Amino acid sequence: MESAIPQNLEMKRTRHKRVPDDYQPPYPSFVARYKPAVSRVVMAYFGVQHRGTVPAAATDALKEIAGLFAAEHGPSHWDRAHYVDQAGHENVVSVAYWDDVARFDAWFASAREAWTGKAREGVGTFIEVLRPSVERHETLFSSLGRAEGVAVIADGMSGEVQEHAYWGGMRDRIPLSQTDAMAPGGSPELIRDGARLRVKAHDNLCLIRSGQDWSDTEASERKLYLDDVEPVLREGMDFLRDDGLAIGCYANRYMGVLSADGSASEKSYGQSWWKSLAALERWAESHPTHVKIFGAAMKYLSTLGPSAKLRLYHEVTVATADEQFFEYLNCHSKTGMLAAVEG
Amino acid sequence: MESAIPQNLEMKRTRHKRVPDDYQPPYPSFVARYKPAVSRVVMAYFGVQHRGTVPAAATDALKEIAGLFAAEHGPSHWDRAHYVDQAGHENVVSVAYWDDVARFDAWFASAREAWTGKAREGVGTFIEVLRPSVERHETLFSSLGRAEGVAVIADGMSGEVQEHAYWGGMRDRIPLSQTDAMAPGGSPELIRDGARLRVKAHDNLCLIRSGQDWSDTEASERKLYLDDVEPVLREGMDFLRDDGLAIGCYANRYMGVLSADGSASEKSYGQSWWKSLAALERWAESHPTHVKIFGAAMKYLSTLGPSAKLRLYHEVTVATADEQFFEYLNCHSKTGMLAAVEG
Repeated sequence: MESAIPQNLEMKRTRHKRVPDDYQPPYPSFVARYKPAVSRVVMAYFGVQHRGTVPAAATDALKEIAGLFAAEHGPSHWDRAHYVDQAGHENVVSVAYWDDVARFDAWFASAREAWTGKAREGVGTFIEVLRPSVERHETLFSSLGRAEGVAVIADGMSGEVQEHAYWGGMRDRIPLSQTDAMAPGGSPELIRDGARLRVKAHDNLCLIRSGQDWSDTEASERKLYLDDVEPVLREGMDFLRDDGLAIGCYANRYMGVLSADGSASEKSYGQSWWKSLAALERWAESHPTHVKIFGAAMKYLSTLGPSAKLRLYHEVTVATADEQFFEYLNCHSKTGMLAAVEG
Repeated sequence: MESAIPQNLEMKRTRHKRVPDDYQPPYPSFVARYKPAVSRVVMAYFGVQHRGTVPAAATDALKEIAGLFAAEHGPSHWDRAHYVDQAGHENVVSVAYWDDVARFDAWFASAREAWTGKAREGVGTFIEVLRPSVERHETLFSSLGRAEGVAVIADGMSGEVQEHAYWGGMRDRIPLSQTDAMAPGGSPELIRDGARLRVKAHDNLCLIRSGQDWSDTEASERKLYLDDVEPVLREGMDFLRDDGLAIGCYANRYMGVLSADGSASEKSYGQSWWKSLAALERWAESHPTHVKIFGAAMKYLSTLGPSAKLRLYHEVTVATADEQFFEYLNCHSKTGMLAAVEG
């Protein structure tokens, strides 16, 4: 058993973790471990949005960003996913990860111009970037052997960690929680720059990417996941998408991961922007929609026990204002963080 | 909105509460308020146990303890409840409350001799007492107008309090949580004194009495409670009674409250002894049996909204070793805290 907080990020605590030192989680979980030299990671969401039949410009845009990712200083890993948003628009989001901010910076300026610096026929584009210090970030995996998201660029995975399977584990895994309550610092503002719309959010904005991978499940487990768990998860994701603002969820996307050839895969993730880690905590632990998700997942896992082949993971970041960048071009007014500001 | 912690018990914090200062609970709840002069309360459980047909000695014992309660220095309030335990024994427990330890002490010595100092034909008797300082104790009520348990002896009820409707609220309502983790301090020991068996437990043993009152509910709400909630609650109570030890629950009783004439009422409570507040927290927030109870209660309350007539309350104490007293005479070996020690 080890702490989710890596040794090099241990600080003299002024805030306690929520469980006693002898707490034993009821089942194993793991976290991504970066090389100690990694002080900051970058997660960059590049979205392309359109309505109805796929315009040529959308296909071109996807090729273009893939080409940019492959160029010098490009990301160590990226993936792509699709969803239909609350306005009925199709969105394809390519998510790229770096573990070196200097490399990202060398890459980003021209990529940004290419992505949100020019209008494309019939499509909108957006960029959402966090570049948190590793103190402001945590991951969690239900099993080893298949890293996802930011964990793909990590040095590897931990052994079994202590800080999970209780409410508050998410916070306790973030190294900064040792000394900081991570309270939110203001309200998001819209900045107009011609057709480009930027959102300046605030300190301690929170991002979660929470993923599901049922590709290894077989007959009965697959049926149980798809019939009993997935619909409840979808209901919760729809709630956050449509009515999340009142409880501090600025935006939520329930994404279907795309295979390399662009076809649907058996992986999904929810990605949401929150006013604070506390708002995410409150939804997760007490809102009826997540209580139902948690109940369905508990029932699923207690039915299957250690034989479950479903893989679950998440990554959570609480970023300072200057670790964030949001830019939208020709997107509808409820896209991403635009939903959090007056249009 | 006020803090559940009364002003006179506010301390300079070395430990944070789990929610930010601007946290707003989604529905109202209330706590008992004692007069500031009350530094300690006493809750004393007097049990009588038998198998099969009620022996005359059991009826006599109940009359006797009621007489003792009515005597000088007797409790400010008491109630009585019944349950059938895991060994198939009937148990009637009379619970008495004091807000003045000197008065209790003046009363207790002779009452103890009367209750566990002499054998009774065909019945066992037991005494379980806590006398916590008010720093080590909290209550919570879903509505005003009908105090139960220790709250009956309080000065009155608070306004709406902040620290509830989130996991960790129970801890945050206990004044001592401002400065102390309340970690448990050892293992319970059996002390034989002739036929009397005493249990010496340990620092930070935890007691919860968690009550339900459906006497005000009408047709459809009553049906919803009795059909959908109560069976799930009972299942969780049975789990704690039969299998609780492995997760730190020494003993659990799911009691039916008795009316003054000894007949059944439309009130119940679960009463359980725990190794620590942390063990109770872990069960409540993540064990499948309580997740089901929580899910059923959430569904019930979200169906009914503010019109719900069901009343819920609890009282929780985390006691030092010298604030505890457990004594059993002619009871079976799984009675109360006897279940926590080698027989």
